[in-house]
Amino acid sequence: MRPRMTQSGLAPTHPVQALDETGAMRTVRIAGESPLTLKVDGHEVVTLMTLGTHPEALALGYLRNQRLVEDLATIAAVEVDWEHETVQVRTHKGEGIAHWQEKLRHRTVTTGCAQGTVFSCTLDKLYDQRLPQVPVYQSSIYALLHTVGRRNEIYREAGAVHGCALCRMDGTEAQILYFVEDVGRHNAADAIAGLMWLEGLEGGDKIFYTTGRLTSEIVMKTANMGIPTLLSRSGITHMGLQLAQDLGVTLIARAKGHHFLVYNGAEHVIFDAVPGLRRAESRG
Amino acid sequence: MRPRMTQSGLAPTHPVQALDETGAMRTVRIAGESPLTLKVDGHEVVTLMTLGTHPEALALGYLRNQRLVEDLATIAAVEVDWEHETVQVRTHKGEGIAHWQEKLRHRTVTTGCAQGTVFSCTLDKLYDQRLPQVPVYQSSIYALLHTVGRRNEIYREAGAVHGCALCRMDGTEAQILYFVEDVGRHNAADAIAGLMWLEGLEGGDKIFYTTGRLTSEIVMKTANMGIPTLLSRSGITHMGLQLAQDLGVTLIARAKGHHFLVYNGAEHVIFDAVPGLRRAESRG
Repeated sequence: MRPRMTQSGLAPTHPVQALDETGAMRTVRIAGESPLTLKVDGHEVVTLMTLGTHPEALALGYLRNQRLVEDLATIAAVEVDWEHETVQVRTHKGEGIAHWQEKLRHRTVTTGCAQGTVFSCTLDKLYDQRLPQVPVYQSSIYALLHTVGRRNEIYREAGAVHGCALCRMDGTEAQILYFVEDVGRHNAADAIAGLMWLEGLEGGDKIFYTTGRLTSEIVMKTANMGIPTLLSRSGITHMGLQLAQDLGVTLIARAKGHHFLVYNGAEHVIFDAVPGLRRAESRG
Repeated sequence: MRPRMTQSGLAPTHPVQALDETGAMRTVRIAGESPLTLKVDGHEVVTLMTLGTHPEALALGYLRNQRLVEDLATIAAVEVDWEHETVQVRTHKGEGIAHWQEKLRHRTVTTGCAQGTVFSCTLDKLYDQRLPQVPVYQSSIYALLHTVGRRNEIYREAGAVHGCALCRMDGTEAQILYFVEDVGRHNAADAIAGLMWLEGLEGGDKIFYTTGRLTSEIVMKTANMGIPTLLSRSGITHMGLQLAQDLGVTLIARAKGHHFLVYNGAEHVIFDAVPGLRRAESRG
């Protein structure tokens, strides 16, 4: 049963005046950024800075990815109130917070944008699960990159946001199920985790795409969503790689046009669309 | 008097093997990412995920930008121990932590990379100070952009990092004093704040440059360093703009090549190098 929820997404961009390099005034659009304090049964958990387009899914996905709530069925309601900059999550039992006090004491502020916080318990649980071993077709990577390039509407309009996409793999095809942009890339990832929860979607046959860097935190979140493959337009960090190796996440980064690098899980990648020699030479 | 300090900077990049899109194995370099737990007089403040090249300056700059320490002279020692992933800051009195307990309870996790945390007291103090009103020459912006483009060595080698620069303005000239890269752009900003403190540098005649987005947090940190002008290669958020207006920070973003947009403080920008019509037309 889905929780009772508000539908309080904000408009993502605002028009403002700016002077360009010729001294001319122009009207341009910039990304929103609003504080949103997450409370569970009245107890404050965290304040997130967000674009605000998916605040209910963001709250749920945050609780899911931080492993603060293990089961959606325990949640009765999610209520966003922008006037007070809060999202209230209410559990059926109304006592969901008791065991968190200890968790909340041990935060790690990470390289993540927007909610760079990981509760130390999260990682331990991730090591207990195994991700499925799934083949990734090069042709589906290219299909996905081609499609996501047309979905980053807020970025093209206002910049200052990262985009994340959840994609279903079907052989050589890739279908984008969700594309979320936020001023913090981790908000976008958490909002997708929340949407997956609400729709009851499993991660095993999915690819998670992000425009952002693959740091330890985004690898953790992907594994937590049960998604075995992570694809990024940007680079990776050493700790992101180590975690991907430990958790069994296939890591493909620096993916633009026909280029990409497989940093982990190369045995799962099927090179069915190798570009011609001309392209390979132009890499330099 | 400067505190006693270790000099424990890490090498920023690591070589790893990756498969490219042709299926060929290549050796590439990726950015480091290490946890570093900051303790003051034995009390844990935060764990940062960092590239680790300037850990001592990062620790000091973090304490400075969060307004947890107001005066460098109160600090006796900064000791980094990578084996235990800690940086120990010791105050002369050894009691510097007492008033922090309340602060540590009210963290906001922000859109910041790497240490997206702001203690709520920080902002109140910022409103009490006034930044100097300083002219910014268009020609010095171009000089700066030209120079920083050659300083982002780690990004060009490994990606996955943001760069920040502290620049001294001298009429139409711009001199880069520090250029720091980190997996979190806020780490880079804090490391520069630490270096400024150690060298006794004021912010009034400086420009702060970042490759990252101008969100509320980076505007706050710039104001906190006493720097009146913020320049970014990326875009801005609505809250970043509002804070810049409130605090009097000149905000110049989307600065690449000859293009830029002045979002706040346009009255301080002197258009002494307006590009020709040809360029203006090509903006589209």
